[in-house]
Amino acid sequence: MEKLRVGVLGATGAVGQQFIALLKNHPWFRVTALAASERSAGKTYREAANWILQTPIPENIVNMKVLPPQPEFNCDFVFSGLDSSVAREIEWKFAVAGIPVISNAKNHRLDPLIPLLIPEVNPGHISLIQLQREKYGFGSGFIVTNPNCTTVGLAMGVLPVFQQFGIRKMLVTTLQAISGAGYPGVASLDILGNVIPNISGEAEKIRSEPLKIFGKLRENKIFPAEISISAQCNRVPVRNGHLISVSLATDRAADLEAVFSAYSDFVSPLTKWKLPGAPQHPIRLTDQSFDPQPFAQVDRDNGMTVSVGQVQSCPVLDFRLVALVHNTIRGAAGGAILNAEWLKANGFLGGVDNR
Amino acid sequence: MEKLRVGVLGATGAVGQQFIALLKNHPWFRVTALAASERSAGKTYREAANWILQTPIPENIVNMKVLPPQPEFNCDFVFSGLDSSVAREIEWKFAVAGIPVISNAKNHRLDPLIPLLIPEVNPGHISLIQLQREKYGFGSGFIVTNPNCTTVGLAMGVLPVFQQFGIRKMLVTTLQAISGAGYPGVASLDILGNVIPNISGEAEKIRSEPLKIFGKLRENKIFPAEISISAQCNRVPVRNGHLISVSLATDRAADLEAVFSAYSDFVSPLTKWKLPGAPQHPIRLTDQSFDPQPFAQVDRDNGMTVSVGQVQSCPVLDFRLVALVHNTIRGAAGGAILNAEWLKANGFLGGVDNR
Amino acid sequence: MEKLRVGVLGATGAVGQQFIALLKNHPWFRVTALAASERSAGKTYREAANWILQTPIPENIVNMKVLPPQPEFNCDFVFSGLDSSVAREIEWKFAVAGIPVISNAKNHRLDPLIPLLIPEVNPGHISLIQLQREKYGFGSGFIVTNPNCTTVGLAMGVLPVFQQFGIRKMLVTTLQAISGAGYPGVASLDILGNVIPNISGEAEKIRSEPLKIFGKLRENKIFPAEISISAQCNRVPVRNGHLISVSLATDRAADLEAVFSAYSDFVSPLTKWKLPGAPQHPIRLTDQSFDPQPFAQVDRDNGMTVSVGQVQSCPVLDFRLVALVHNTIRGAAGGAILNAEWLKANGFLGGVDNR
Amino acid sequence: MEKLRVGVLGATGAVGQQFIALLKNHPWFRVTALAASERSAGKTYREAANWILQTPIPENIVNMKVLPPQPEFNCDFVFSGLDSSVAREIEWKFAVAGIPVISNAKNHRLDPLIPLLIPEVNPGHISLIQLQREKYGFGSGFIVTNPNCTTVGLAMGVLPVFQQFGIRKMLVTTLQAISGAGYPGVASLDILGNVIPNISGEAEKIRSEPLKIFGKLRENKIFPAEISISAQCNRVPVRNGHLISVSLATDRAADLEAVFSAYSDFVSPLTKWKLPGAPQHPIRLTDQSFDPQPFAQVDRDNGMTVSVGQVQSCPVLDFRLVALVHNTIRGAAGGAILNAEWLKANGFLGGVDNR
Repeated sequence: MEKLRVGVLGATGAVGQQFIALLKNHPWFRVTALAASERSAGKTYREAANWILQTPIPENIVNMKVLPPQPEFNCDFVFSGLDSSVAREIEWKFAVAGIPVISNAKNHRLDPLIPLLIPEVNPGHISLIQLQREKYGFGSGFIVTNPNCTTVGLAMGVLPVFQQFGIRKMLVTTLQAISGAGYPGVASLDILGNVIPNISGEAEKIRSEPLKIFGKLRENKIFPAEISISAQCNRVPVRNGHLISVSLATDRAADLEAVFSAYSDFVSPLTKWKLPGAPQHPIRLTDQSFDPQPFAQVDRDNGMTVSVGQVQSCPVLDFRLVALVHNTIRGAAGGAILNAEWLKANGFLGGVDNR
Repeated sequence: MEKLRVGVLGATGAVGQQFIALLKNHPWFRVTALAASERSAGKTYREAANWILQTPIPENIVNMKVLPPQPEFNCDFVFSGLDSSVAREIEWKFAVAGIPVISNAKNHRLDPLIPLLIPEVNPGHISLIQLQREKYGFGSGFIVTNPNCTTVGLAMGVLPVFQQFGIRKMLVTTLQAISGAGYPGVASLDILGNVIPNISGEAEKIRSEPLKIFGKLRENKIFPAEISISAQCNRVPVRNGHLISVSLATDRAADLEAVFSAYSDFVSPLTKWKLPGAPQHPIRLTDQSFDPQPFAQVDRDNGMTVSVGQVQSCPVLDFRLVALVHNTIRGAAGGAILNAEWLKANGFLGGVDNR
Repeated sequence: MEKLRVGVLGATGAVGQQFIALLKNHPWFRVTALAASERSAGKTYREAANWILQTPIPENIVNMKVLPPQPEFNCDFVFSGLDSSVAREIEWKFAVAGIPVISNAKNHRLDPLIPLLIPEVNPGHISLIQLQREKYGFGSGFIVTNPNCTTVGLAMGVLPVFQQFGIRKMLVTTLQAISGAGYPGVASLDILGNVIPNISGEAEKIRSEPLKIFGKLRENKIFPAEISISAQCNRVPVRNGHLISVSLATDRAADLEAVFSAYSDFVSPLTKWKLPGAPQHPIRLTDQSFDPQPFAQVDRDNGMTVSVGQVQSCPVLDFRLVALVHNTIRGAAGGAILNAEWLKANGFLGGVDNR
Repeated sequence: MEKLRVGVLGATGAVGQQFIALLKNHPWFRVTALAASERSAGKTYREAANWILQTPIPENIVNMKVLPPQPEFNCDFVFSGLDSSVAREIEWKFAVAGIPVISNAKNHRLDPLIPLLIPEVNPGHISLIQLQREKYGFGSGFIVTNPNCTTVGLAMGVLPVFQQFGIRKMLVTTLQAISGAGYPGVASLDILGNVIPNISGEAEKIRSEPLKIFGKLRENKIFPAEISISAQCNRVPVRNGHLISVSLATDRAADLEAVFSAYSDFVSPLTKWKLPGAPQHPIRLTDQSFDPQPFAQVDRDNGMTVSVGQVQSCPVLDFRLVALVHNTIRGAAGGAILNAEWLKANGFLGGVDNR
């Protein structure tokens, strides 16, 4: 199988770097174009990017020329790690030019025709693509988004409960890593030995995105889930890994035993598809007293697993638990790559996969 | 006025050190005896204590001899910073010997005859002392406790709402500083750049202690408040200052405006008593978008103020807010000293105060 | 005595904020004008400044209007916390307008007619001012600078050795706090749980500034000290306090005992002048095995003392020691204020002081 | 080839855990016995060990029974991660029983008959083993040690200079990670946002161990290198990775260009032996302005490479540089495993290797 040619938009930013690092040696995709702002265009990637990851820049990328963010290069699709200040327009331009856009930006997430996709949660939402193409005149192009990093951890973390018992209320308090703010992001004077009890715009995303993700698709329309969500977000001096403390009320009665069973019985709908980036256990329940911890669990399964622990009855709502998600991998670039794999497996990228 | 002579039990531990530091230059009290475990007894304080505070050991304390924890030295009362493994027995022994014990230990907190005191919240609970003396045969002695450090921040943080509208539910998530675990306490390998989503025994205290604190005293009996409380506790790499994220449901309907008014209208019942350690504003509401933060606010008013921010409507319960308490000052030694001041002002220590 | 009226240039920056905080309640000076870039001019200070200190903005400053950095307001002298990109020109303009400038900026530090002043080290260098006024046409104005924050700690830290035995070589390795880089300064992703073994431009300052500070003034000319200095600078995740590890070779033979005596015999030349900001012991030698530490010692004497420890023989040069300086107080704003006090005491600011 | 059976002494400690993690899937060795103190003996490994690494306990180890540290189990050799309080005696007992001991403990490092081995530096020192066996009556047993973690980084970091020009002086200042102190090790209250300018016993090791490592072996005797070494050690809030700032004077004149060439020309003497744990480039010179940094480089080549940067002329001695070593891998367990590989390749473990 020939690998699909991939462009990375916003290639020099924090998310763009993570795309490049994760796509190194990807069995289906290979990066053939890097695009960034006009300021970077024309430089080699090494010159243009202030590389912030622990792993070095892949060798085939180091001297690649950075292009302007125009749909004028050859590729089978693009990943977008664009900043939200420019993503709306640029992504649209690529889609109109017939190039599929797998985006991590927030701009199109709540568009009713654009899937807000977590393949383990709402795999069927990709059927919106057909209507999207018609309505928006995208031709062979389309846009698919992944949720906000915290929302991914939340949606995955409660998924077994949602599937077994339904959820009508969620009360969320987060402890979020500094890498979620990009680079340079949070000033060290603001966060060293400190906690900041607010993250601009974050609570709004947590309150709105899950409704669409857990929504039901009927006749090409997503009917949002009816869940009351409250959120308060804290920045903590942790490098990677958002911790999400959730209390929830279920639709249907459940005891704690049944909740544990929901987790142990959970099977990923992706298992049989053998997607290269899909973890065997996308949700890992831990019974260790002091887990999940960013240090110990965030890199499990290459950062693609959501760890869940501290599951207990809640005297106010029904249950409480703590979920941990790697915010720049499963919650951003890794999640977007999994979206692309799911789309390819379903024939939306580079022809039907008939292995 | 002659200063009262104070003994400090558990003088070499983290809380004991804080007692000593805060009592330096206290206008009513002076430390005249230091007691610690048999291992320390006989040494000078400098030899016995591994001093961990930023301020140096007060000069009059440096060469004071550490005594065994027996009620055999002269003093008007003692502060107890004893470890809970030994506090129960030793504190009882002092009370039986007629020496009042103002304790920070957890052992006697839930005893129905022993006040669990925050003077701004339940000042009248000290009237239990008379009954306590009779039932327990304490003579001139007694025991008064202050709550767990997080409970103090929680009770103070919601006090104006409780007083104005009543509270029937509280859902709590905490971000707690490492100094809460004493010394050596949390290993650096466990917490540097990490969060630990559980603190042994902490959630239980948060669920039980507020019921007594907010309880009504009738006929020498405390009728516990009827509040459902849920708590999940996280350790974060912050030196001092517990952040407490609370969602709550009120007894009586209130709008957000009224809640803000409850805070701005709040007046400390201690104001007119001019206690040396009582802050002018024991609860400070902040409207800054990113407050309260441990770094910026924890030391306000010598660490005796609870800062409250992020007050907002909650889509699941009624309101949310974030409270910040200095865990080793207001939440421990400073709170105990304020208790002693309140007791002295009410004639329970060293005669009626008739200034 | 009427307080002198002080303007603060660069009032909204990190150093400017420290000036404002330290001048609150100063017995000789009061802030009457705040100047910052054109972008801030016209706003109130609260609007213009992103306040980053733990203590709140002084009440008399909160609503003060920020002025443009032009010598058009009334004041007796100005402190400059200007960024080096603009300090050269603006400071010159004030001096030419007859306004004394006490500067923390680096631009004029090596000018042969401008004192690079640490009052305990080279108090007599202020006699350059007369020549400076003549040559540069400053009239009643002048410029006096304080050294780089690390240089201050170094020069103070070795001063007793320099005075007793002379120094001909210094080999320096630093561990510097993040506040030294201003705000936003160091990105948290760069420094959390990390060390960066280079600070742009810092080693150069450490190699050059001490030569002038320790230089001899003869016939209105500073003859630089003849010391070989090597420096390598590290940024560490500490909020305040630069640690400076120095090995040195002396001019004249000395044994370790004599070095210790040099420290214990050291008397500040400022003692008899009773300057409000001069610490009683500007250099504190510690014999505690694990000191000096930023956490424990940096705030001693209001951040104006340099702590010295780990004094020992060096198998390669003659001696080693570790000095600790509060980089934003003694090493910046506090040092500049002490310079102003010294200048006032010597009649260079607001008339001869004849107490 | 059948894998050699390996016992791990001190298996539950920090170094023992690292041995177990690194030996997972080792092509030559397999862990068949775990020994720890009597307190742990009899338990399963999971019960006995407080696992502190990011990677989980290998599956074949989880339920292995922990044995007492007696030479009564079958194995081809043992790794010792024993605490120095017990290592001397226990290691000796194993050697006397005919079992080779590859030790990370400090106790036997300076014994004139026991190699203090870094295979890239002094590979020939293993010929001491024959004499050691005779003199100490070890039979088929022997003891080989690896140096202190910082010494490894220092010796490797300056090796190309030592080999090309000789070294007569080294002036060392270190910034050491918390994992170097084991678990629980450094209390978080001592190190969060702080630096401690002393590490008990560390400077002594840095002053003495390199003399033996760089010593010449003649007629079964090591003649120590003649190098004056000065060291001052700092603990910094970094998880893994010791930074070593070295200034050095060479025996023979060299210019900076020649020093750079020494690094680029350096070839590991192990290359042709194809040892599984030997990195291709055991010393990596970086020319990036802000490297080497623990965060970015410590895990390179599985933590077995020493990164060197900041190479420059030194105005006091001849040159300066900064070396970075992974203290628990190359500086401890990984170094010991490489020692074992080198010994096996030379026929000292399980027969001559004749691939």
